[in-house]
Amino acid sequence: MLDEPNNWGRWGAADERGALNLLTPETVLAAASCVREGRVLGLSLPIRGATSSPAPTTVPHLRGRPLPQHFMSVDGGDYAAGTRAIGAGLKMADDALVVTPHGTTTHMDALCHMWSGDELYNGHPADRVRSYGAGRCGIDKAGPVVARGVLFDVPRLRGVEHLAATDRITPEDLEACGVELRPGDVAVVRTGWPLTWADGPDAYWSGQPGLSAGAGRWLAARDVCAVASDNAAIGGLNERQLADEELADDLHMILLWRHGVPLLEMLWLEELAAASRTDFLFVAAPLRIEGGTASPVTPVAVL
Amino acid sequence: MLDEPNNWGRWGAADERGALNLLTPETVLAAASCVREGRVLGLSLPIRGATSSPAPTTVPHLRGRPLPQHFMSVDGGDYAAGTRAIGAGLKMADDALVVTPHGTTTHMDALCHMWSGDELYNGHPADRVRSYGAGRCGIDKAGPVVARGVLFDVPRLRGVEHLAATDRITPEDLEACGVELRPGDVAVVRTGWPLTWADGPDAYWSGQPGLSAGAGRWLAARDVCAVASDNAAIGGLNERQLADEELADDLHMILLWRHGVPLLEMLWLEELAAASRTDFLFVAAPLRIEGGTASPVTPVAVL
Amino acid sequence: MLDEPNNWGRWGAADERGALNLLTPETVLAAASCVREGRVLGLSLPIRGATSSPAPTTVPHLRGRPLPQHFMSVDGGDYAAGTRAIGAGLKMADDALVVTPHGTTTHMDALCHMWSGDELYNGHPADRVRSYGAGRCGIDKAGPVVARGVLFDVPRLRGVEHLAATDRITPEDLEACGVELRPGDVAVVRTGWPLTWADGPDAYWSGQPGLSAGAGRWLAARDVCAVASDNAAIGGLNERQLADEELADDLHMILLWRHGVPLLEMLWLEELAAASRTDFLFVAAPLRIEGGTASPVTPVAVL
Amino acid sequence: MLDEPNNWGRWGAADERGALNLLTPETVLAAASCVREGRVLGLSLPIRGATSSPAPTTVPHLRGRPLPQHFMSVDGGDYAAGTRAIGAGLKMADDALVVTPHGTTTHMDALCHMWSGDELYNGHPADRVRSYGAGRCGIDKAGPVVARGVLFDVPRLRGVEHLAATDRITPEDLEACGVELRPGDVAVVRTGWPLTWADGPDAYWSGQPGLSAGAGRWLAARDVCAVASDNAAIGGLNERQLADEELADDLHMILLWRHGVPLLEMLWLEELAAASRTDFLFVAAPLRIEGGTASPVTPVAVL
Repeated sequence: MLDEPNNWGRWGAADERGALNLLTPETVLAAASCVREGRVLGLSLPIRGATSSPAPTTVPHLRGRPLPQHFMSVDGGDYAAGTRAIGAGLKMADDALVVTPHGTTTHMDALCHMWSGDELYNGHPADRVRSYGAGRCGIDKAGPVVARGVLFDVPRLRGVEHLAATDRITPEDLEACGVELRPGDVAVVRTGWPLTWADGPDAYWSGQPGLSAGAGRWLAARDVCAVASDNAAIGGLNERQLADEELADDLHMILLWRHGVPLLEMLWLEELAAASRTDFLFVAAPLRIEGGTASPVTPVAVL
Repeated sequence: MLDEPNNWGRWGAADERGALNLLTPETVLAAASCVREGRVLGLSLPIRGATSSPAPTTVPHLRGRPLPQHFMSVDGGDYAAGTRAIGAGLKMADDALVVTPHGTTTHMDALCHMWSGDELYNGHPADRVRSYGAGRCGIDKAGPVVARGVLFDVPRLRGVEHLAATDRITPEDLEACGVELRPGDVAVVRTGWPLTWADGPDAYWSGQPGLSAGAGRWLAARDVCAVASDNAAIGGLNERQLADEELADDLHMILLWRHGVPLLEMLWLEELAAASRTDFLFVAAPLRIEGGTASPVTPVAVL
Repeated sequence: MLDEPNNWGRWGAADERGALNLLTPETVLAAASCVREGRVLGLSLPIRGATSSPAPTTVPHLRGRPLPQHFMSVDGGDYAAGTRAIGAGLKMADDALVVTPHGTTTHMDALCHMWSGDELYNGHPADRVRSYGAGRCGIDKAGPVVARGVLFDVPRLRGVEHLAATDRITPEDLEACGVELRPGDVAVVRTGWPLTWADGPDAYWSGQPGLSAGAGRWLAARDVCAVASDNAAIGGLNERQLADEELADDLHMILLWRHGVPLLEMLWLEELAAASRTDFLFVAAPLRIEGGTASPVTPVAVL
Repeated sequence: MLDEPNNWGRWGAADERGALNLLTPETVLAAASCVREGRVLGLSLPIRGATSSPAPTTVPHLRGRPLPQHFMSVDGGDYAAGTRAIGAGLKMADDALVVTPHGTTTHMDALCHMWSGDELYNGHPADRVRSYGAGRCGIDKAGPVVARGVLFDVPRLRGVEHLAATDRITPEDLEACGVELRPGDVAVVRTGWPLTWADGPDAYWSGQPGLSAGAGRWLAARDVCAVASDNAAIGGLNERQLADEELADDLHMILLWRHGVPLLEMLWLEELAAASRTDFLFVAAPLRIEGGTASPVTPVAVL
């Protein structure tokens, strides 16, 4: 049976889109009006392959996660070695990517990514998340995030290059950033932690700063449509790369599960921070991976 | 040796970005000003896995290409079967994607994707495109496309649901669409061909309509920053899924190779066509796959 | 926690090894004594990649299954294009394989591959078969098959090149082959069906001949340690590539599930058939994929 | 164009099979006659997936290599979560494997794996090793190894549990093992190094013992058909996991490249060592990966 093509353009129903329902024509228009300089910033880390090259260890990722693998199925080397051009002279390079987004690169979490008990966000049954993919709350249901982005540059607030591994961002920190946050905005939280990768993986893996439970609740209460951060898990991590919070205080539970707020993690925010802009047009369009728990993504800030 | 993190936020130098250099603060501001309704459309097809389910054959793709594969490394089924929650009750789903973008899903071609002779676009040596990835003109060099999008709805012009497999769109067709195209715009060309998938793969594979060489030159001469289409190869294809043009007239040679115009293929444009808008904000942010020949992407139209 | 290395050399306990428990020093010695000519035959099909080459469609496989993908992470083309040798002159090629064994290439089924109700073979709980792999009856538990192989060359018996798609092999056929089958032997059943691939995929996909339920019971009653066949599913398939038998008569239920007889499918038996030997040393050593439902394998006949 | 099925049963021509040409009916018969106890040992390490489980770090592998990934496309968890059985009650588990054999698991190197200059073993042009796979000397050309295996248990000779990282096995060591090596035999060399994995990855990665150049020449001069070892690279490795020998003395150059001796690496030999048998039937049947540089394999010793 063929799918009805006229479903292909539709994202999920409201009950699977969580806080993305906060996006309305009005918020989108307001977001577009934040474009004042016409400058575009990409907010993602490079996707670097775990191949025979020594390069793979040089991009931030969580220890033990399967790194992306990138393969060329035909390349310039093949032509140098004698592969014939197609027809009258056409040559091509073609490739493939194997990627596990969580913990290895900039990505957006679907609402099905974490839960407690037997129900996903909004009471959707967790047993619909199967090997075939998530039948409910998958990343294919999310749709593009086109919103006003607001930067919380906590290291700047504190006058440090980056937060320390044990730092937890409080509601007071967010308040102190002095930026205006409106319903439907994306809160973009900078910790500066990816800078530690320059000191080697062990520095990066020594723990991670992140939002406190209180800060998560503070954001949810302000009706953000999404939270994006440059750390690996929105909340902080200990040296075993796990969250220390109790279930009730876990950041994924608070934001993703209870409030349906999709999360974007492992962003690269240094140029955005340097731009000293606190609001901007934020666009992140996940791949429509059917039943996906996440999508690798390149979020964009248009200043 | 560690990469300098302060390179992570940079896209390629101008000589590897081709027509994307046409994007300037002025074009970006003009693009943002096209947002008048605040409506957001995703322009991608679903990414559907080639797994044991019967589903994979139901999304448009070129015959014989390796279909995307999507795997869950832990899912709700595992918890139903007895897997214990993490810590005090946290459950998670995690996944992986294997994807060959060309010919299988909505994607953006890097400038390294096709060439003739020994040089890529702009004289970059083709022998730098190796198994490790493209050292020149890879998709990691492109950066996000944030531009004014202009729709050429050729089926509407002709009063048909979709073009025929042998139809080639002429410069006169593009003129007759009566839309204003400015330097730095993305030309979005609709053929309606994905609708044929509803009649089965053989209908879709019977050939494809597309731009004629003349139309490609017409677009390049108007300084588009990118061309996006809902067919599989910008140009038309015969029933063997190959282009019939001579090398000089091949659409990838004209646009991608000679003029450095990145191409977006296999878009889903039906809702956009129904919206009857000819200009809009167009955003497509490729994944930063180092040395990639393409990236799967969800282009966005903001109306 | 580290695994005890001294577990690495152990296969599964007897209760997960099914009919492979029939292999004893005596049967192994008897099998070795079948080596009379010193001739070695490999019984597998080539593993051919679903890459940009047109080759992938030319090896037998079930329609719709994800084909193997083979990638080179560095190759001779890279050196031709200028990649420098390692150290004082060493060059290397390195590769990766993505493979879904069932239905795409010669493989051995683990006992966890099929079941009915809530229990695998021998009462092992089916809910131990999870995304992490099969905790029970996985291919890692099987161990190498070193046994006397006995060929049932049914096409030769009937004087045809290959059986017809609707042919089902009966106990009488097996009897009529006139070969001696002893406890612990591998029954190698030839249908000749892979020869139809020469007429194209549609010929191969039009259905498949195979063992009848009666023949499956006949073999199980004779205490074979494994059944190997050159068709895709031991039993026959209809034109939708499904088995027509009721549950009680399904070949996988009879052999794999009830009797714990591992199955080897999609073998290439033409040279073995031409050798006119009915008994031989048969060796098949599955990869130790932890929790795997199967392993691609190259079975060997030593004549 | 379809392949001629009657090629499928053929391995490579003699000029691509190197030392495997030493295998003759006589050597195979002699090998089979080594079966005296009827005991079967598998000589491979488990293939353990780099998934979300913490397990991946617990099997020996070279640092930085892409670990195997194993995925279930349907499993028992799905049925526990409500997936319906097929037809009248059939349930199944299906899986996929992503594997880079070199450095991650027990494997057999093809003759195309390493070379110097522009020629592979036996003068085959290295530029035939392309992204599509190795057109010459690939693992698909090797065919099964069915030979007399001879164990060189160097730790036993020296009275140690395992050799030290800096130990290099000399010709005198091999002589001192006092085992008879005949043309066409497989030399199985034990270092015991995998035992260090019990002390953690850093212990394993601190370097590796292995054959000296002299020992490699000693084996080649005795016309072995293959060399198998429990270390990762036949020769020794330093703490950066590289060989210290000059090009002329590199073990892969001596054995694989000059003498065409295929190599089997990362075996698990502890039970074999404990069996105190110095000769046995050795069988290793690589997967027929077309153009592959290696195959994961489970070598078998039949005592």
